Amino acid sequence: MPYTMPSYKPPDFSSPQFAAAPLAVFRAAAQDGVAPEQFHATSIFPEYFKVKEGGWQLLRESRMDCVVVLEAGGRLSVKEFRHLKQGDLVAIGRKENGEEGIFVHANGFDFPEHVMEKFSFRTRITRETSFSIDYDELYDLLEYERTNGFILWVLGPATVFDRDSRKAFTALVESGYVHGMLAGNALAVHDMEASLFGTALGQEIYSKRSVALGHYKHLDTINRVRTLGSIKQAIDRGVVKDGIIRALVEKRIPYVLAGSIRDDGPLPGVIESAYVAQDGMRSLARQATTIIALATQLHAIATGNMVPSYIVTGRDKVRPVYFYSVDMSEFAVSKLADRGSLTARSILTNVQDFVVTVERGLRKRCEG
Amino acid sequence: MPYTMPSYKPPDFSSPQFAAAPLAVFRAAAQDGVAPEQFHATSIFPEYFKVKEGGWQLLRESRMDCVVVLEAGGRLSVKEFRHLKQGDLVAIGRKENGEEGIFVHANGFDFPEHVMEKFSFRTRITRETSFSIDYDELYDLLEYERTNGFILWVLGPATVFDRDSRKAFTALVESGYVHGMLAGNALAVHDMEASLFGTALGQEIYSKRSVALGHYKHLDTINRVRTLGSIKQAIDRGVVKDGIIRALVEKRIPYVLAGSIRDDGPLPGVIESAYVAQDGMRSLARQATTIIALATQLHAIATGNMVPSYIVTGRDKVRPVYFYSVDMSEFAVSKLADRGSLTARSILTNVQDFVVTVERGLRKRCEG
Amino acid sequence: MPYTMPSYKPPDFSSPQFAAAPLAVFRAAAQDGVAPEQFHATSIFPEYFKVKEGGWQLLRESRMDCVVVLEAGGRLSVKEFRHLKQGDLVAIGRKENGEEGIFVHANGFDFPEHVMEKFSFRTRITRETSFSIDYDELYDLLEYERTNGFILWVLGPATVFDRDSRKAFTALVESGYVHGMLAGNALAVHDMEASLFGTALGQEIYSKRSVALGHYKHLDTINRVRTLGSIKQAIDRGVVKDGIIRALVEKRIPYVLAGSIRDDGPLPGVIESAYVAQDGMRSLARQATTIIALATQLHAIATGNMVPSYIVTGRDKVRPVYFYSVDMSEFAVSKLADRGSLTARSILTNVQDFVVTVERGLRKRCEG
Amino acid sequence: MPYTMPSYKPPDFSSPQFAAAPLAVFRAAAQDGVAPEQFHATSIFPEYFKVKEGGWQLLRESRMDCVVVLEAGGRLSVKEFRHLKQGDLVAIGRKENGEEGIFVHANGFDFPEHVMEKFSFRTRITRETSFSIDYDELYDLLEYERTNGFILWVLGPATVFDRDSRKAFTALVESGYVHGMLAGNALAVHDMEASLFGTALGQEIYSKRSVALGHYKHLDTINRVRTLGSIKQAIDRGVVKDGIIRALVEKRIPYVLAGSIRDDGPLPGVIESAYVAQDGMRSLARQATTIIALATQLHAIATGNMVPSYIVTGRDKVRPVYFYSVDMSEFAVSKLADRGSLTARSILTNVQDFVVTVERGLRKRCEG
Repeated sequence: MPYTMPSYKPPDFSSPQFAAAPLAVFRAAAQDGVAPEQFHATSIFPEYFKVKEGGWQLLRESRMDCVVVLEAGGRLSVKEFRHLKQGDLVAIGRKENGEEGIFVHANGFDFPEHVMEKFSFRTRITRETSFSIDYDELYDLLEYERTNGFILWVLGPATVFDRDSRKAFTALVESGYVHGMLAGNALAVHDMEASLFGTALGQEIYSKRSVALGHYKHLDTINRVRTLGSIKQAIDRGVVKDGIIRALVEKRIPYVLAGSIRDDGPLPGVIESAYVAQDGMRSLARQATTIIALATQLHAIATGNMVPSYIVTGRDKVRPVYFYSVDMSEFAVSKLADRGSLTARSILTNVQDFVVTVERGLRKRCEG
Repeated sequence: MPYTMPSYKPPDFSSPQFAAAPLAVFRAAAQDGVAPEQFHATSIFPEYFKVKEGGWQLLRESRMDCVVVLEAGGRLSVKEFRHLKQGDLVAIGRKENGEEGIFVHANGFDFPEHVMEKFSFRTRITRETSFSIDYDELYDLLEYERTNGFILWVLGPATVFDRDSRKAFTALVESGYVHGMLAGNALAVHDMEASLFGTALGQEIYSKRSVALGHYKHLDTINRVRTLGSIKQAIDRGVVKDGIIRALVEKRIPYVLAGSIRDDGPLPGVIESAYVAQDGMRSLARQATTIIALATQLHAIATGNMVPSYIVTGRDKVRPVYFYSVDMSEFAVSKLADRGSLTARSILTNVQDFVVTVERGLRKRCEG
Repeated sequence: MPYTMPSYKPPDFSSPQFAAAPLAVFRAAAQDGVAPEQFHATSIFPEYFKVKEGGWQLLRESRMDCVVVLEAGGRLSVKEFRHLKQGDLVAIGRKENGEEGIFVHANGFDFPEHVMEKFSFRTRITRETSFSIDYDELYDLLEYERTNGFILWVLGPATVFDRDSRKAFTALVESGYVHGMLAGNALAVHDMEASLFGTALGQEIYSKRSVALGHYKHLDTINRVRTLGSIKQAIDRGVVKDGIIRALVEKRIPYVLAGSIRDDGPLPGVIESAYVAQDGMRSLARQATTIIALATQLHAIATGNMVPSYIVTGRDKVRPVYFYSVDMSEFAVSKLADRGSLTARSILTNVQDFVVTVERGLRKRCEG
Repeated sequence: MPYTMPSYKPPDFSSPQFAAAPLAVFRAAAQDGVAPEQFHATSIFPEYFKVKEGGWQLLRESRMDCVVVLEAGGRLSVKEFRHLKQGDLVAIGRKENGEEGIFVHANGFDFPEHVMEKFSFRTRITRETSFSIDYDELYDLLEYERTNGFILWVLGPATVFDRDSRKAFTALVESGYVHGMLAGNALAVHDMEASLFGTALGQEIYSKRSVALGHYKHLDTINRVRTLGSIKQAIDRGVVKDGIIRALVEKRIPYVLAGSIRDDGPLPGVIESAYVAQDGMRSLARQATTIIALATQLHAIATGNMVPSYIVTGRDKVRPVYFYSVDMSEFAVSKLADRGSLTARSILTNVQDFVVTVERGLRKRCEG
């Protein structure tokens, strides 16, 4: 079934409520990195600011818990606190109903009634929830997004701990279902360890046999790539012969490897600074129309923080941004489901099965 | 790859250790349901009893935590305490090395070395363990067992909460991969609720839509079957048109529905007595060569208690009995993995994905 | 802070809506154990039936998923399907607003506003939820209930796997905070195993040392009690010297041990029939004003099914029935929290810590 | 019971095996940050290197997965790959038995037999394991460490989501049981949010009431501290009046706040670079004699990576380093328990209960 985009209904700004609203107030930041008191913080929803009479401006590339800055040309931008510069004009006001020139439009999308219903019931997603429809909807969505959207994957290392799952995700990359990837050092290390040694953390990724001196395998992988100077070199010279990272590099698909305090190495190219990494992640998140986070709390929550529930494409087309989190624990997925948006979905399962199933499902559709 | 049965090497009873061993001692039970002091309790392993000079007898149809009774004809039987009758001759002795005429043979199977190794490493199975090989080995095993063994499934109700999973398990029944099933009232109720109303606990099993008066759906299902007097009637009269229970009944595959204190109803045919239910379960467990328990702690542990690690077929052929537990939580599967046997396996995933994947995997092999 | 009972506001039956309502319809059951079509099923809320003009009768001792029978004297009783007799007059009607002479009063209790608020926010209880207030409220409640209510505990075996927890619960029994207990065979077996051998499943409950022939300890315990014929005998003869069961027996506190298919033994006194056990459990549940379920899904859900959100005391006083579930997993507690009642509470923690903390908290209050 | 330190038995280097061993080989690093092929990687155990005839040198301040560098003066240091400089002399060899001049001493500590036994049994720690003894041993240990050791805590934010837990941990700081703390931005943010607003993420930490504009509370906290320029300023000026961070600062206890991609803000003082943060963490980890990690996978694993199982104090005294991980999930704690050391301990419970219980237990001992 082809994917149907829910239509978006902007607020009716000709109504008296909006006509009578004052202009949004902006106040200059007194210091770098610090917002004025009573700053307005963004949500995941479409937000409109009355920047001039008759002109409500919709935020583009928004994300939650940031501030809104009126740029020189009159355009609004959504900034993290740490990016504020002294003198930046920051939006002030905490009412969301227009009374302060700010309107948060939480229910703009015209989701079909059964989705609404379903979600009202579905507040608790557990391991016993039925997920057949979620797979089918996801196939529809990914087929659509492959050519019309930007599919951003967020991967935990478990994705490459298993041979079939690693192979299936590589196939997803090769067949065009991956437009960007966010992960950490470990995902890349173990993906390449699998290519060099057939292992992950010293255990064969198919037979589970623990190889001799297994605890050296990831260190040798890291050291070899560090010797060559870059992941790209390791691939170009044929040291890394297969896997997810190689597929991404060969297809020139952008990815961000964010450093963390758990890292060994790290691999060249892993971003050391947490906040430079956030900027890199957000540069992909800005474009994303569907995000799928697999078996990682750290990266999934980080990405969730920087992804709004909508995206503005073209001049002013608004569409939803879908956020799937796939994990084994109710606790992990409910951290993300708390976004309170119809565009957040959870599937509780092992990511290995998820990746293998989704790849097979999409392939079968193409063939079928 | 065709399944290879590990060979079994019985103890060498001609060795001096065994030749010199005394006969096993049996003492009469003084009361019904009570064993004499120092009774021997069975394990999951093959156990031999020296019942006459030169004659070590292997237990058939064993299970753990039971007593061994010397029957009139000289045959040994393995009995639950509650089945002991006054005067029954009960084996005495707690040494397992032959010194008391009792020998527990824990390492009789000749598993290939890589299995041994793998298992030594694999002591902790987590959600991040690689499971590709487990699926492949399971396909091999189930193909073999379909014609040569007895595959016993133990199902939690989550198996029928999802349309695709329910359909896939029904297909497994129809294609011969199910020789027996153990479950509770809820599995049967919600399977038939799905047939009557398309729901499980009032929620559609595909769309997840909550139907009007949904909380009546399982009660109406139960009440309707109770009106007809039996599950068989409900199927014969066409009230229950599809699903797992119908497939089992039509293919005359034995199943046991054990009652529990959680039950509504119950359905006709659900066994009220916990211990009569145990007997019914064990009558299937005695024949089982592979058991697969899905998403149920109560029934999985109960079944695990009554399943040994081996089965004697024909006159004296000994082969392993495999026990798979499939669940979402490390806690649940480790309860079963504690059996300490190479024949116990765990897969950590959502059972919906498991069932759909296994059915597809087996079907593809048949077609391929 | 002394516990404050929320007041209960019955519906205003003098209002036109109720005055105009028809009498509730009752239809005779055609067979034993089967309800007439369109039977009304009970909820956990107070329900009123217009049995005669001007007379709305409130259900007493209700529970969910049962039917309502008009008894000879005009009194209504709430029956499980399996207890229906041919000819029983069963209430008919599925509207809950009075239109069919049946009114379900879901919001009768006057909970303080902050409780309402708190709960609206608190829909998701996770391991990261703050629980300080829940302990404090529980102390208040239990102090009140000790003399004014009926505190029913539902125990999983983990409660006695730890020395301090077993001791603390025994102290709760001795100091009057336990008016009834529901559990299974295992709780009693391991509690008495601890008394006889200092172990649970062969592991010392303090040092964790695994004793020699540990796997015999619970079997020897069961066999010894079976020899004596009853738990009472085992206590009277000094075989069982301490622990929870001994304390209950000595203080003549009623308890129900429900049999299950997992049981070894069972102990004498364990109820074999799941449905006789349900009746026994319900006979305590009918009196309960606060229920606390610890680390058991099976017994907690079973009890939850038979406990309403209110109790009628004296002639017609209505008060809430509180239901606490204490467990380690979001999945387990959310099964119970789905009751949708302000009287259901969850605490996510290890039950050992919970029991020790609650006993200490209550003791300190008494001393303080 | 006063804590008894297990004695340490160094290898007998006078034995022929060691006398005949060759000198360890060191090879110069060819590039910065890259080790020579066949580098030796460190473990968590005491390791000895034969650097000259008759001289086996024990590594001090070791950690796993690092390389060993022979410094100018003949001293060995344990370095992360990223700290290697061109020309550094790196130990070569992967045999651990002395054959290559390297000896890994995995069983040097003389743990009492019951500890050994206990641990052999205890391979699986679950929510049903008995933890009474762990609390008692921990009290003994912490009393000893308070004056004789260095207790390093690793905190997840859940520690401050609850009023009683936050208060109890603050008391631990004030009474001398905290010598260092490792955490992330969130712990500090919500601890100070509690001081400024009484909330964590906008929910009151005792009543659970959701305050108006709650989602601004942590942002306002961060923004206020950023305005003042430092956490120290926020404390000195009385903005932050209580809590864990204030107690640490006032008692001049060192702490490291490591930045992560999940951070809002961040607070001043949070270390942006993952690897600078690692260095900071390791500078505390080097001194640690007992580490306790509460409800954080990221920080607990990161710390576990940099903590060996032993520490050398004074000239050459070797004692164990204990590592406790406290969490709600078997999965989380088994990640750390895989260290395979008798010095790693796990307690499965809610950290709120853990902190409150430990503080009370220690206080009672002091008073008692």
